[in-house]
Amino acid sequence: MTDPAPLPPGSTIGILGGGQLGRMLALAAARLGLKVVVFDPDPNAPAAQVCAGHECAGYDDIAALERFAGVVDVVTYEFENIPTDALDAVEAHVPIRPDRRALATSQDRLSEKTFLEGIGLRVAPFAPVETAAELAGAVARIGTPSILKTRRFGYDGKGQVRLRSPGDAAAAWAELNEEPCVLEGFVRFEREISVIGARGVSGQIACFDPGENVHRDGILHTTTVPASIPHGLATDAVLLAGRILNALDYVGVIGVELFVTAEGLLVNEFAPRVHNSGHWTQDACAIDQFEQHVRAVAGWPLGDGQRHSDAVMTNLIGADAHDWLEAGRAGGLHLYGKAEARPGRKMGHVNRISPRR
Amino acid sequence: MTDPAPLPPGSTIGILGGGQLGRMLALAAARLGLKVVVFDPDPNAPAAQVCAGHECAGYDDIAALERFAGVVDVVTYEFENIPTDALDAVEAHVPIRPDRRALATSQDRLSEKTFLEGIGLRVAPFAPVETAAELAGAVARIGTPSILKTRRFGYDGKGQVRLRSPGDAAAAWAELNEEPCVLEGFVRFEREISVIGARGVSGQIACFDPGENVHRDGILHTTTVPASIPHGLATDAVLLAGRILNALDYVGVIGVELFVTAEGLLVNEFAPRVHNSGHWTQDACAIDQFEQHVRAVAGWPLGDGQRHSDAVMTNLIGADAHDWLEAGRAGGLHLYGKAEARPGRKMGHVNRISPRR
Repeated sequence: MTDPAPLPPGSTIGILGGGQLGRMLALAAARLGLKVVVFDPDPNAPAAQVCAGHECAGYDDIAALERFAGVVDVVTYEFENIPTDALDAVEAHVPIRPDRRALATSQDRLSEKTFLEGIGLRVAPFAPVETAAELAGAVARIGTPSILKTRRFGYDGKGQVRLRSPGDAAAAWAELNEEPCVLEGFVRFEREISVIGARGVSGQIACFDPGENVHRDGILHTTTVPASIPHGLATDAVLLAGRILNALDYVGVIGVELFVTAEGLLVNEFAPRVHNSGHWTQDACAIDQFEQHVRAVAGWPLGDGQRHSDAVMTNLIGADAHDWLEAGRAGGLHLYGKAEARPGRKMGHVNRISPRR
Repeated sequence: MTDPAPLPPGSTIGILGGGQLGRMLALAAARLGLKVVVFDPDPNAPAAQVCAGHECAGYDDIAALERFAGVVDVVTYEFENIPTDALDAVEAHVPIRPDRRALATSQDRLSEKTFLEGIGLRVAPFAPVETAAELAGAVARIGTPSILKTRRFGYDGKGQVRLRSPGDAAAAWAELNEEPCVLEGFVRFEREISVIGARGVSGQIACFDPGENVHRDGILHTTTVPASIPHGLATDAVLLAGRILNALDYVGVIGVELFVTAEGLLVNEFAPRVHNSGHWTQDACAIDQFEQHVRAVAGWPLGDGQRHSDAVMTNLIGADAHDWLEAGRAGGLHLYGKAEARPGRKMGHVNRISPRR
């Protein structure tokens, strides 16, 4: 089978979702002379300000999705919780990259963990929970402390409740509306790192150096590169990301979150898209994660993802963004064009770079 | 006098001219959460694909210029040959940065050279030519080889003819339609360098390291940074750019072209805008020339223009752009979204970076 031909400059990339990730993908595509049309129900979607076109409609509007698919050459997305019917409508016209398998695997925590175990990677102990009986059995097997997570639609700490003791189980499940869940054993980790990897249509892989993540209130606060881990572990992390990419015959950028434990690396989860913990690449690498994703999706050879500088990325959450002047003094400032700085809302980020140590 | 307040994120920058410079300015503004509306008569203007708005009209359409000025908070430009009436129409509503003085000085080679001499900088010997008698006198005084250049509207080697001997003078002037000209003595230079400098509303100055330029067929071919010049000369070049910026009470980015001669630095010309020879900053600096210009125009503090890598920028002219796949493998590829690769047309550029030597 030959690889699909690369889309020439002037081609149009469709992006499902026009938030900050869609916006930064659009800016990267523009650098490469590619046009972008974004699909997003929000008339003020951040990406819409920097795109050639904006199909403003809901993800259940099949006619709008077909219109969108009709004016683009390939479709990608900035979030993984896209309804199946929307994907069907688009895929009838143009390819979706990364493909349905990557989406299906990552949309559901149970299939994600099963897949990861299946390719020989370590994950936290887990058990599915769909009934009260399964919940009791899971708690008995996994123990506490543990975390009950909905199988779908979780992000930024949402859709999960910690169990401190077995007695918390019923209330936790009620809080999650008794949706299908996964109970995860609590992992005692030294640090959380992530690897942003990319795979092209020809199978070429390029991974960025692992970054070390610190969260606040369940939301990523900083990513620091290089991570404070031994060189061998960094290599392991990159190889592990490569294994996921190959197993999924993946095209595009993936974000893989890993826990560093006393027993080695353990996969927390992966996202089939550009990832907040990869924003540091914008100012510290020759080619950043957004351009790498666009290159892959457009069928281009991947770029050189080498890191020329060390970096600390700090998210600007909610009112943090009011200090934009100060943030702009501190380093590479990236603001998302969102009008209202609501609490917990990602408004922008700052990349501070320094010479490689 | 207090400095004007910085424009907050969400403000709108108007750009006169929607070519590649306007496009890259728009992308930089987007990174900072600023909106852009571009004014350009071309419906396919490269910048229009990445902007919130496009006023598509001629520079003589005063009503359109007023509409444009009415929806933006400040106006800048990507080219210096803007008609005076257009500037008047815009300036009645919003500030133009860099201001009219910078434009007026640089639009006319005679006022440019007179200004530069006036602030104590060296330029090539020159003489104004408006009549046949002045032409004869100029040739007698400056000698040959020399170059006859139109006072206005010259770029990329256009609007100039070389005189090899005094006998060429009349034909050269006829070729330039007997427009007002300047005769310039031919400068024997070792190399051409340029300094991209920026000045903020508060008078803060930040200059990028000088780059060394090589032209082909009158069009910039490569810029290499660092330039092969002694450290002291690089410092002189930066100080000299700073002197121009201060003398003009300038706000924005300026491109200053210099000749390195046996007797030291000599100013060739300056452009009151981002400059092709500053494109290397996109991939080799923490903050590039486009963002620096946007910051200055928006009244923000300038960013840190330090160079983290060495760089070679190569323009992709005309059919060069057909090799976009190869160019994309070589380094940071920047394509301008132009459909047709006509000979001599700037289609994009590639920045190859390497660790600082």
